[in-house]
Parts: sequence; structure tokens; C-alpha cells
Amino acid sequence: MLNKNVETFIGCAGEYADADIVLFGAPFDGTTSLKPGARFAPRAIRSESFGLETYSPYQDKDLEEISVFDSGDLELCFGNSARVLSDIEKRTDTIITDGKLPFMIGGEHLVTLGAVRAAVRRRSDTHIIHLDAHTDLRDDYLGEKLSHATVIRRCHEITGDGKIYQFGIRSGDRSEFLWSGSRTHMIMYGFEGLAGVIEALEGVPVYLTVDLDVLDPSAFPGTGTPEAGGVSFDALRRAVTDICRLCRVVGCDVCELSPTWDPSGISTAAAAKIIREMLLALNTRGKQRRL
Amino acid sequence: MLNKNVETFIGCAGEYADADIVLFGAPFDGTTSLKPGARFAPRAIRSESFGLETYSPYQDKDLEEISVFDSGDLELCFGNSARVLSDIEKRTDTIITDGKLPFMIGGEHLVTLGAVRAAVRRRSDTHIIHLDAHTDLRDDYLGEKLSHATVIRRCHEITGDGKIYQFGIRSGDRSEFLWSGSRTHMIMYGFEGLAGVIEALEGVPVYLTVDLDVLDPSAFPGTGTPEAGGVSFDALRRAVTDICRLCRVVGCDVCELSPTWDPSGISTAAAAKIIREMLLALNTRGKQRRL
Amino acid sequence: MLNKNVETFIGCAGEYADADIVLFGAPFDGTTSLKPGARFAPRAIRSESFGLETYSPYQDKDLEEISVFDSGDLELCFGNSARVLSDIEKRTDTIITDGKLPFMIGGEHLVTLGAVRAAVRRRSDTHIIHLDAHTDLRDDYLGEKLSHATVIRRCHEITGDGKIYQFGIRSGDRSEFLWSGSRTHMIMYGFEGLAGVIEALEGVPVYLTVDLDVLDPSAFPGTGTPEAGGVSFDALRRAVTDICRLCRVVGCDVCELSPTWDPSGISTAAAAKIIREMLLALNTRGKQRRL
Amino acid sequence: MLNKNVETFIGCAGEYADADIVLFGAPFDGTTSLKPGARFAPRAIRSESFGLETYSPYQDKDLEEISVFDSGDLELCFGNSARVLSDIEKRTDTIITDGKLPFMIGGEHLVTLGAVRAAVRRRSDTHIIHLDAHTDLRDDYLGEKLSHATVIRRCHEITGDGKIYQFGIRSGDRSEFLWSGSRTHMIMYGFEGLAGVIEALEGVPVYLTVDLDVLDPSAFPGTGTPEAGGVSFDALRRAVTDICRLCRVVGCDVCELSPTWDPSGISTAAAAKIIREMLLALNTRGKQRRL
Amino acid sequence: MLNKNVETFIGCAGEYADADIVLFGAPFDGTTSLKPGARFAPRAIRSESFGLETYSPYQDKDLEEISVFDSGDLELCFGNSARVLSDIEKRTDTIITDGKLPFMIGGEHLVTLGAVRAAVRRRSDTHIIHLDAHTDLRDDYLGEKLSHATVIRRCHEITGDGKIYQFGIRSGDRSEFLWSGSRTHMIMYGFEGLAGVIEALEGVPVYLTVDLDVLDPSAFPGTGTPEAGGVSFDALRRAVTDICRLCRVVGCDVCELSPTWDPSGISTAAAAKIIREMLLALNTRGKQRRL
Amino acid sequence: MLNKNVETFIGCAGEYADADIVLFGAPFDGTTSLKPGARFAPRAIRSESFGLETYSPYQDKDLEEISVFDSGDLELCFGNSARVLSDIEKRTDTIITDGKLPFMIGGEHLVTLGAVRAAVRRRSDTHIIHLDAHTDLRDDYLGEKLSHATVIRRCHEITGDGKIYQFGIRSGDRSEFLWSGSRTHMIMYGFEGLAGVIEALEGVPVYLTVDLDVLDPSAFPGTGTPEAGGVSFDALRRAVTDICRLCRVVGCDVCELSPTWDPSGISTAAAAKIIREMLLALNTRGKQRRL
Repeated sequence: MLNKNVETFIGCAGEYADADIVLFGAPFDGTTSLKPGARFAPRAIRSESFGLETYSPYQDKDLEEISVFDSGDLELCFGNSARVLSDIEKRTDTIITDGKLPFMIGGEHLVTLGAVRAAVRRRSDTHIIHLDAHTDLRDDYLGEKLSHATVIRRCHEITGDGKIYQFGIRSGDRSEFLWSGSRTHMIMYGFEGLAGVIEALEGVPVYLTVDLDVLDPSAFPGTGTPEAGGVSFDALRRAVTDICRLCRVVGCDVCELSPTWDPSGISTAAAAKIIREMLLALNTRGKQRRL
Repeated sequence: MLNKNVETFIGCAGEYADADIVLFGAPFDGTTSLKPGARFAPRAIRSESFGLETYSPYQDKDLEEISVFDSGDLELCFGNSARVLSDIEKRTDTIITDGKLPFMIGGEHLVTLGAVRAAVRRRSDTHIIHLDAHTDLRDDYLGEKLSHATVIRRCHEITGDGKIYQFGIRSGDRSEFLWSGSRTHMIMYGFEGLAGVIEALEGVPVYLTVDLDVLDPSAFPGTGTPEAGGVSFDALRRAVTDICRLCRVVGCDVCELSPTWDPSGISTAAAAKIIREMLLALNTRGKQRRL
Repeated sequence: MLNKNVETFIGCAGEYADADIVLFGAPFDGTTSLKPGARFAPRAIRSESFGLETYSPYQDKDLEEISVFDSGDLELCFGNSARVLSDIEKRTDTIITDGKLPFMIGGEHLVTLGAVRAAVRRRSDTHIIHLDAHTDLRDDYLGEKLSHATVIRRCHEITGDGKIYQFGIRSGDRSEFLWSGSRTHMIMYGFEGLAGVIEALEGVPVYLTVDLDVLDPSAFPGTGTPEAGGVSFDALRRAVTDICRLCRVVGCDVCELSPTWDPSGISTAAAAKIIREMLLALNTRGKQRRL
Repeated sequence: MLNKNVETFIGCAGEYADADIVLFGAPFDGTTSLKPGARFAPRAIRSESFGLETYSPYQDKDLEEISVFDSGDLELCFGNSARVLSDIEKRTDTIITDGKLPFMIGGEHLVTLGAVRAAVRRRSDTHIIHLDAHTDLRDDYLGEKLSHATVIRRCHEITGDGKIYQFGIRSGDRSEFLWSGSRTHMIMYGFEGLAGVIEALEGVPVYLTVDLDVLDPSAFPGTGTPEAGGVSFDALRRAVTDICRLCRVVGCDVCELSPTWDPSGISTAAAAKIIREMLLALNTRGKQRRL
Repeated sequence: MLNKNVETFIGCAGEYADADIVLFGAPFDGTTSLKPGARFAPRAIRSESFGLETYSPYQDKDLEEISVFDSGDLELCFGNSARVLSDIEKRTDTIITDGKLPFMIGGEHLVTLGAVRAAVRRRSDTHIIHLDAHTDLRDDYLGEKLSHATVIRRCHEITGDGKIYQFGIRSGDRSEFLWSGSRTHMIMYGFEGLAGVIEALEGVPVYLTVDLDVLDPSAFPGTGTPEAGGVSFDALRRAVTDICRLCRVVGCDVCELSPTWDPSGISTAAAAKIIREMLLALNTRGKQRRL
Repeated sequence: MLNKNVETFIGCAGEYADADIVLFGAPFDGTTSLKPGARFAPRAIRSESFGLETYSPYQDKDLEEISVFDSGDLELCFGNSARVLSDIEKRTDTIITDGKLPFMIGGEHLVTLGAVRAAVRRRSDTHIIHLDAHTDLRDDYLGEKLSHATVIRRCHEITGDGKIYQFGIRSGDRSEFLWSGSRTHMIMYGFEGLAGVIEALEGVPVYLTVDLDVLDPSAFPGTGTPEAGGVSFDALRRAVTDICRLCRVVGCDVCELSPTWDPSGISTAAAAKIIREMLLALNTRGKQRRL
């Protein structure tokens, strides 16, 4: 008898009950202001992941040795950001409640807010590590409070001062940089000081959000708002590996791939590889990683 | 002294005060469910329009002989359909109030609702002629009432039964076709009976909404939801020319070009040509056309 | 508990045991001589099918009322056409043995040979209806016997003279047209005489193979060897509907979509719509349809 | 010993001395005002021609039975239209002087002027049949006399009144249509009356220039200035076949393919097929065809 | 009353009378020998600039604090390089005469010649800083003196020996490198020695021309003649910032973006960011900067 | 009398008899598992090479001073890898037998096996230097022994242990890395130790195979299986220059460009430039280089 057509990220064909980590897609780009298309990212990443191997020579680990479940994409509505965030929050909450690590594939960056809400409700001392080209600290964007350009500002309203670490930032309004001040820890342009931050956060629950446009557009052209002068793939790979391996990550996401704009597929392949490295690095912490 | 860089639809460089018709763009695609990109249409159409001539051999008229003002694009927010519709309604209302004909370039089809609200408020007996591949008669789409897939259903709530004429329809849920029944006049696949409808609507205020996916995808590949088996360019050109020339059109729009998906630009060129023919045909009615 | 990520053609989410028709993909383009990419067709068609409705106004039927199972894609090797055909033959045979109708989504046209082998083994009087721009009657192509350019010649070796009906043909070597002679029934350019053929084949088991390049390239640009001067979408839609509704179809396939070459996606959408119409039309025959 | 890498149009690998027809490319797009890229046409057409067969079922003739020589592309300078035309004129003259038929593959439409100069110098009673969407009758374009938009006006200065037959025209300034008047024979939109023109031109030397944008953009999206509402491929195929078969053609060209804008390649394939049909039809006249 | 549709580079919506710097586009690519498309650059850069912020964290300055006027694109003819250069020269002269700094957005590199003519006429001791992958020192290209490949040679004819500084060069004929010798200062591959040059040029009027293909193609794929092995975005950003901040720049341009070839838009975004950084750095000199 | 249309790599228009190096194309991608298109590489590289100069400032040499013959592409069958390899082997053997250096332009990486067979048959002590992102050391791929993923494993069966040097490797199955062990010399990620290898191989016949996906995808997006984290263009340029200049290279190839996936053409331009540098560096050894 023939089987149904199951599509997962490479090496993530396990069962939910056994999984330590649960992938899900949030195919949303409703507040993207420049070039939409991030909705297509989860599906594209799954498909392109089969161009990778399950084995990482960087970490000498293999996805086939760990247990990840890919629960597919949320079916999100169009034109109502609040409802989208609510659906994301519920899915994240379910996964956390079941003692597993939620790993969301965006979608544009606003999706992070839904997952952060669920994570912080569970553990109010959750800190955020935020890798991005943009500050995302506006209070509103064309009058809207819920936007890819305001998402970290909204997260700050939940976490409070001093709990958000921003790396790689190279674009924003002057007022956003001023606002950051004592409220968020902001490292411009790269990952300087990351080792110290990881050390300082020992034992603290951390939500990691990766806006892939932190990468230089040469390595990652397929994104809605490319910003020249970013970090190299290897720099990002090392940063996320260290965070996932050494921090107590309680949830994470990878956002802002927009495969529409990159016919070569190198952006999708880079995203898939970053996800593979994160999955492998997260696994080293075992049960400890959970909330 | 050098001038500012003004960009208009070809032949529409007149002044607002003198204009009979006022163009504006509604660059919105927030509820597009399949492939976004209609936000780029107004700008692309203006640019591509310079590949056309201002003169139409079909009608033996020239845009340079009539008076159209291109007021540019609305600056619409992202992620809040209700506010977008409100902004569209206000712009439409301003134009009508100034005694001019509003001509909106979408954007996805939901934008029509904003313009229809303004038109019907002014004249409650406004009828709608709707050219489209899709019924757009759902009550909601994934729970949302405001959607490109529900827009004509929402318009019907404003106009009431029997005031909407749908042509070219070839796709929809079974329940939408059933719902139509005595509520809307639906002509499948083409424009059969259009002459009779035009005759029947003599003197009645008409809002014309053209979802360009009524065209066959071969003539119009650049759209979010291409539906095979549509009408030819010449069939659509003749239909809109007749409606604009013979009906008492009080407002109109052209929607659902998504230039992103058609690198050849033929969809944008077709849209621009349809708009030129509509502008030239609308002009024959002079003052009579206004509300 | 969360579910696995199942991907099917729209409206084909049933169970194998209940299904009358079983879809499967054959993502193979190993002998494509001009532009490869047909390997991507099954996945693209599934994805794009969600831009369609499950309901067909042409036939007033709905996929949700019939029972189709989508068993996903075969995992085919690269560089060995004989093994690929063997895998296709096995899958087809399993479906037929289970009393269901096999519906294959290619892939390039050579895949038909595997399915025909299984169909003819079950019923030796199986006839073939072949819709295509090209004769596909070469004896070899650059020395290879197994090729998209030889596939109907190979089928003829199985069926013998007079059992193959070719429609829409507009390209081939002079020698292929001469060879056809009394061996195959060839209708040039369109579907003239199709009604008579359907009548003549009453009760006879028929395998239907649709090379989508029978369509005019304007309606179907996404194919490896576009050939100008083809049939319209509606002509093909009517032809396949009549064949599937009126013939005793025992197996069928739809081939030669190559989504790589059509960024607009209209070719994929057309392919999906043809498949929907075929599935709905096949269903009218019920049990009778089976071998 | 290995051979040099010769690239020709399919089936045109003969020797110059034996050839009745000589192909050459004029890869020029220096006056293209909207979207450049016609410079890439000759090379693209040669490459794509191998997706065709040498045999035409429409005419039951084969390129392998006739003698055509493909002399490759002229190496034209950039930024100097006058020198480009001079180089084209020289090449055309050489071919005519050697008693062969020149068949030029453009390039944008201005290239026709160079070839027409050579043809008319040889036979002053040369008439022109011009298939195009655009009148090309402006006196200048942004001040320049040499332009794709003025080329037929310049040809008229050479031939004088009444010797130019224009078919398929659907775009131009009002002043161009007025200018045409008694100077050129203009048939709008299609090929009505072509048979009569062919009859009237019996024995008269004819230069045939085909601007491929006479085709509908659905069949031919890859061109610099697509103009909706054109003729079908089959209509153009029949027209050029009749002209080439029945007129005394002394030179011809096929222009305005711009493969850059059509990633599907259907425009290039259509151009190649039109060229094949022209080559096969030209051949029926044998020696008579020459000047 | 509604306004006209004004399109400017982000943050450059000021009035001409108040402006210190005046932007204008020169949409010309008439001598591009490989891949045309630079004509589309000015419009694409304006549009994409809205993906940037007006604020630069690199310089801690904001476009909203300075005064730039965007005067739109010149309407240049096609096929006549001399006239194009004359139009550019006039526009540049007007701006200089009005005591403002001309900032031209190309277009291909030949446009620089028009601006340099105006600048040198005003101040005969004007020096040129030239950032480029190519020497551009040929005497002619396929017989033409006016070409993107000869533009610096032509500039040298105006400035004389020793006044041109070339950086980043990595491609050219052997004869061009030999010719350079004592005539131009040429730094291969990067910006070594730039600080010394800036120091040496203190107080001297400098025209800065940036051929963006000096960037590595990974950071800037959208150009007519990509040349592997170029400088990074940050290296170029620092170089132009230093030159604009420290030299007495009397005119400048940014050339050779060809957005056609980069569907991701990262090249256009990079160009826009370079222009923003140049505008902000130029401003530090105030009145002193003017001729 | 006009000439045939000969197309060669830039500066390689010499005669076979005089040539030291003979280029040929192997347009094969029959075992490409992810994204096909490498078949288009040889033709694309020839065409794009005219965007380069024949002169290299890196080496201060010019292609016009050396003698290379471009013998065009092999006409390879489809669907039969064994026959393809046999044709490649024969061509390579002919060139070697004629005392010339074979330089193959792939095609996918499996083509290397054909050339290596010919090279090793001539000199059994031939060593291989292999630059690649992938190990290519599988024993089979989906059951097939002949695959781009197994090609170096197959080469090892010919050369035996210790004769293969792999550089730049960053992807593979764990089992491939383990298998490599004492059988091949594998340098991860870059070219560390290359100088030592070159020294150790003095006088030994070397076959150099360059899988261009060793480059970072930012510099080389146009390939079937892009793998993030690769080497820079300049690193590869220096590596191949050193190998070609200092080793006794008896044959070489450049593989895995797939121009289909890179509309910008920067991958093709990079490939052409690598080939130019290799040709110029190979030439320094003169007769000595030959087998």
C-alpha cells in the first residue's frame, strides 16, 4: 500500500512524540514594506534542504543522530496581523508545553513576536538574542504597531529593559539608535563581544531570533530589504553555532528569506544550512535546553 | 531652474483643477493569498505606459486631447486592510466631491471595496460591472471578511441584490456560484449579453471594476492567481471601451496586475493599454459622466 | 499532538484504500535534449494547484466529492533510463493490481513507456491516445533507443499497428511522418475527428498520454521544446474531458511541464487545471474504468 | 584532426559558393527606446533553432534539401547608427552581387534601412512589404532621423510613394497615420487583402521586412515594445509563407526579437520557426528570385 | 486638491533654490558593448532607495538634515552619443553655474565625459578620481572614439597628464596599461594609497567618477561587464566617504548599474547606499565644495 | 566570399595543428541530482568570454601570445552516462595522442571520469588535484555507480591510494570523510598546504579538476548544488594559477557552471576568467607540460 506524500526538512522525518525539537513554518509576509515573498520561505527551505547533507563537517554531527520533527506550516490568514500572531503563539505554546524546543521558520520578522510571547509567558526571565541588519525598534510603521519594523520594540515591551542583545545592526532611523540606549544591548555591524554575552547569559533562558538579512546581500540576496555591508556566511554560522551550543536556548527562529528574489537559490541554500547547523548545535544541550 | 521629477501615466500630465478624470494608485496586496506583487502595479504601469502611444487607432482619439490628472499613489500601511480601505475611500470621495471621475489602479482586488463605498454613498443606486475570472463571492477567506476573495460579496452588502453584473467568471467554489443565484447577474467565461446590459443600465450610475485576470494567462501572465481559459485582449478591450463609452461610469478601477511574475512586461503593457482605452472612451461622455 | 507535513494535489487528501484514482509523480528529465527541468513538475503542480478551486464550473463537479490518493513522487535514479522505467512500471503495476487507476505526473515524455508497459501487460488490447506537438516516433536519438523523442515508437513495439491515435502533431522528421503511415493514426495540428475515435474505442481499454506541449506556447511556455502553432487551453480541456469521460481509460499521464522556464507560473497552473478536469471526468465511469 | 566550432542556423551548414540564400545577423539595438536586447537575437535564434526540426509539415519541405549559408554576425560598432547601416548595406550588397538572396536577422528594425538601400540600388523598382505592429513612419525620434521609429519613413525616401505595403499595424502617432495616406498602403491589425497585394506585385522585386512584434505578445513576449492585440503565430506563418513563395523576394529580414525579456524562450523559438518557413518558401522560386 | 506624483531619491525632496547638491539621471547605455540596461539605473535607484533609511550610522548623519534636489532624468536621444554628451554637459553646466554641486546617476560610463567637460571648463585645474574595474583608456572601440571603453582616455585629452587617479583597476588591454604609464596614476585592484592622494589633492578641484563595477560581482552582479575579483562594499563605502568628505569635490557621478541583470535588486540597493553615503559626506564641506 | 560562423573562447581562434592546448566542451548534466543546466556551460562561457580581455594583468600575459584551439562541443547522447564517458575519453585521447594538452569545459563533474581514464592510460602515475566543495566519494548514488557524487571515488579506482589531493571540501556524508582516510589527501574548506603539495608533485603528471562550486556561492551562484562558505574568487584564481604554472599538468577541466540559475551572468564570467588564467599559466611550461 502506498504512502502519503510527506515533505520535511532533510533528516527531520522523526515522530513528534520522540522529538526534542519541533520545526514549524510561519509563511507570513503581511507587513513587508518593500518586497514581499517571505511567505514562500518555509516550503523553499524544505525543498532546497535536500541539496545539503545531513552531516556537518563543521560540528562532526549528523541530523540522523538527533530527533527533530517537522510539523509543517501554519495555515495563516491574510490581512490580519493580530490573528497571525495569535496562531503562532498557540503553536509555540503547544510545543513548549509538550517539553520540546520550538524552531520557527519565517516568514517576515513580525512572526517572532508570537513566539516570544509564548516563550516569555512560560519563563518571564527569557532574554532575546537578535541578529539582524536592522534595529526593528520603531514604535510604529505608517501608523501600524505590528510590523516587521517594530517587532523588537514590541518584544521589549514584554521583556523589559536590558534583556535584548542585538548584533550585526547597520540600519535604522536615528531615533531608533537613540531609543536603544540603555534599553537594548546593541552591537553594530558584527558579532563583537558575543562570547562575553554568551558567558553572561549562562543558565538564562534565551530566545534566539535570526533575521537572515544580517548576512551580506552577496551571500544572501533573496530578502525583502537587502542592506549592503553585512556579515559573511561563516561568521553567522559560527555565531549561531556558539549561541545554540552554549546558551540555554528555549526557542528560536530564522526569518526573512524571500526566495522570490533570488532565482539562483543560494539564499535558500544558505538558510537551510544555517538551520542545519542550529539544529545540530541545539542538540548538545539535551533536556537542559527545555524550559 | 530645474524641475522636480514628476512621473505620470503617459499623456496625463495635466493639472488637477482642469481634469475630468483623476488617476490614483492603490499599491496594496495585503490579502493576496497565492503570489503577492500587485503592490508594484501602479508604478510599473506608469513606467511601461511610455512604450505606448497617446493615440488610439481603435477609437481615433488621443490622450493629449483630453484632461486626466495622475495624482500618484496612496501611501498605504501594511497589515491592516481596514485602514487601507478607509484611505482609498477618502481619496475616492475627494475626487468625486470635486466633480471628477476617480480611476483607481490597483493593487489587488480588495481595493475596489474602498472606492465602491465612496461611490455608493454619493449615489445609492450605483450598479457594478465586474469583469473577472473569479466570483469573489466568498463570505470569508480563512476567517477574514476583508479579502480579494470576498470583495464582491462585500460590495453586494452595500448595493443589495440585482445591482452587480459579473462577466468572464470561470472559477469559484460551488457555494459561490449557488449564492450568486438571484443576487448577482453572472455571465460565465466571456462577455455574452454585455450589449443588453449596457442598454438596460442607460442613465444608471455604474462603477466598473476590471480584475485583469479575466484575460487569458497567455495575454496576461503577470497576476497572482492565473486562471487558464480566459478572454482575449481584444475581447476585453472592446468590452471596456463599450462600457466606458456607453454607460454612465461614475468610477472605475483596474486591478490585479502583479508585474513581479512577468519579466517580459507584456502584462504591464496590456494593463496600460486597457487603461488608455478606458480613459479615451470615458471622455466621450463629458460632464454627464459625473455623479 | 502535531501532524506530519503532508503535501498533495488540491482535494486529493483521501486514503489509498478508498481511492479510485492514484496520483504519482515521475520527476525524470534524463533524456530531455534541449532544456531540462521537467523533473520539477510534480512538486510545482502540487504547490500551484492550491491556486485552483476543487470545483469545476465546466463539469459542475468537485474534487471533494471523488476519491483520489496522491502517493507522492517516485525516488528515481539519475543517468539510467532503463532503471527509471522499471521503477515507474512497478508503481503503475501496483496501482492497477489494487484495482485503481494510475495517474502519472511527469517528468519528460519517456516516463510514459514505463506506465504503458504495465497497462499493456494487464490488458494486451490497450490502445493509446497520444496528444502532443511532436511525433515521438524516432527509432533512436543520437544512438539511444530510450528517449523522449522515441517514446511512442517504443510504445508501438508493445501495442502493434493501429492501436495508437496521435492528435495535435506539428513537428517531426520527415521520416517519422512517413513511418507513421498505416502504423499509427495521426491527426495533424488539432483534435479533428476525436469524437469518432472516442466512439470507435467504446469499451476498449485506453491509455491516455498528454504531452502538454500540444498546447500553444503562449498558453504553456514552460516546456523543454516549445513548438509554435499549438492548440488553445480550452481545446485541450475539452479534448481530455471527453476522452476521460467517454473512454474506458485504464491509465493516464500528463507530461513535459518544465516550470523552470516559466517564472510566471501560468504553465504550472494550466497543467494543474488540466489534471483537475481529467480527475473529475475520469470519475464518471466509476468501477467500469478499471482494468 | 579536430574541427573548428561552427555555429549555424539548423540545416544551414552549406558552403557559400553553393548557396541560394545567405543568412547574416545584424546584432544592433542602438536606437531601441524602451527595452534593449535585440542585439542578442541572432545568436539566440541559431542556438534555439536546434529545438526545431529541419522538416516543415506545413510545406512538406526540408532545409536539408535546399542550400542556405549562414555567414554569422556582422561585427557592428556601438553608438554610431550611420556606420552600422553602412556595414549592413555592404554585406547585403556583396550577397546580392554574388547572385544570392540576402536574409538578415536583426537586431532592431533600423537595420532594415541598410539592406533596403542595397536592394533598391540594384533594382530601383523594389517594393517593400512591411509586417509590423507599429507604423515606423515618424520623421524623427527625439531629434534623431535614424531610429527604429523612423525606419519605414526613411525607406519611403528611397522608394517613393506607393511602393510600401504595411500590414498588421496597430500603433502609432496620429500624425503617422495621416502621413501614410496616399504614400504607403496600410492595412490595420492583420493581413486582410494580402492575396491581392501578392497578385498585384507579380514579377516586381520585393523586399520583405518582418518586425516580429506584429505577433500578439502572448505568442511573442520577447520584444522591446510589446503591443497587445496582434496576430497569431499561424496567421503570420501563413502570411510570410505566401509572400516568400509567391512574390519575387530579392531580400528579407526578421527583426525585433529581444530574447532578454523572455526567459521561456518561446519568442526565440517562434522566430526560428518563422525563419525556417521563410527559407523553405523562398526556395520554390529558384533562380527567378534573384535580382 | 491633489498633488502631482513626484519621485525622488529618498530624502531629496527639497527645492532647487535651497539645494547644495543637485542629482540628475543620465539614462544612457548606447555604447555598452556587452549587456545593455544601464539606462534603467536612475529610475531603479530612486525606487529602491526607499528600502534604505535617510540616516547613516556610519557617518551619524541624515539626509533630512542636508539639502539635495533631485531634478529627474535627462531625456536623451538614442543612437547619437555626441548629442547625449552635449545634453549632459549643458545640465552639468547649469548646475555649476547656479553654484551647486552636480551629482549624476548614470547610465554607462561614457556619460562622465559630458560632466567632466563642464567641470573642467569652469576650473581648468580639475583633477579626476576614477574608481573602476576597467582602465577605460582605449583610443577607440571598434572604430568609435566615444565609448564606455574610451571615456577616461577622452577625459585625459581634456585634463592633460598627471591629473587622473585610477583605483581598483583589474582589466584592460595590455596597451592600455602601457599607455597609462606617466599619464595617469593607476592603482591596481584596490584603494592602496588613497589617503596619500587625498592629502596631495588638498584644495584642488576634484571630479569623482565611480564605475560601480569596481565592486566585486558578488556584491554588485547587476552590471554590463562584471569582472571577478573586485573590492568589497565596505571598502568602496569607506573610499567614497573619504574622498567626498576630504576632497574639494566639484562634481561626481555613479555609473554602470544595470538593474536588468540582477533580479534580486542587491546591486541597485548597493548603488543607492553608496549614493546616500556620498551625499552625506559631500555635505560636510558646505560652500567650500563649490567651484 | 563570406566565412562560416566560428565561435571560440576569446583569443583561442588558432589552428589545431599549431595548438599546445585544445579546449573542448562536454555539455552533459545527466546525473545532476538537484538542479540541471550544466549542459549549457560551454556555450555560455564562450559567449561571455568576450566580456573579458585577452590580457591578464595578474600574470602580465596575453592569450594572443599563446596557441590554443577551441574544438567546440562534443555531441553527447542523453540518458546513457557510460556512452557519454566513452565519447569524452576518446576526444581526450585524441588530443593527448596528438601531443597537446586537453582542457575540458564541463558539464557536470562526472565528465572528469572520461578524461581521467584517458590521462591515466597514457601515464599510469597521473595524480589528481581536485578542487571542490563536495567530496564526491560516494560509492553509488541512488544505486548508480556513475554520478557526479561518485566521480572521485571512480577516479580513485583508477589511480589507487594516495594519488588524489582534494582541496576546499566542505560537504559530504560522514561515511565519505571516513572513507577518504588514507586513500585521498583531503584539505577542508580552503587551499591550506597547496604550496607543499605542488612541491611534492614536482615532475609528476597531474590532472587538475576544478569543480567551480568550490567558490563561495556569492561569487558563483550559478551551479547545481550551491554550498555556502566557500573560497573567494581571488583564492581560487591564485590556486589554479599556481597549479597550472608549477605542476606538470597533463590535462584539466573546469566543471559545474550551470548558467541557467544565474541570470546576472557573474558565474559564467567568473568561469571564463578562471579558464583564461589557467590557459595563460599552463603555457609557461611549454613542451614540458605534455605527457
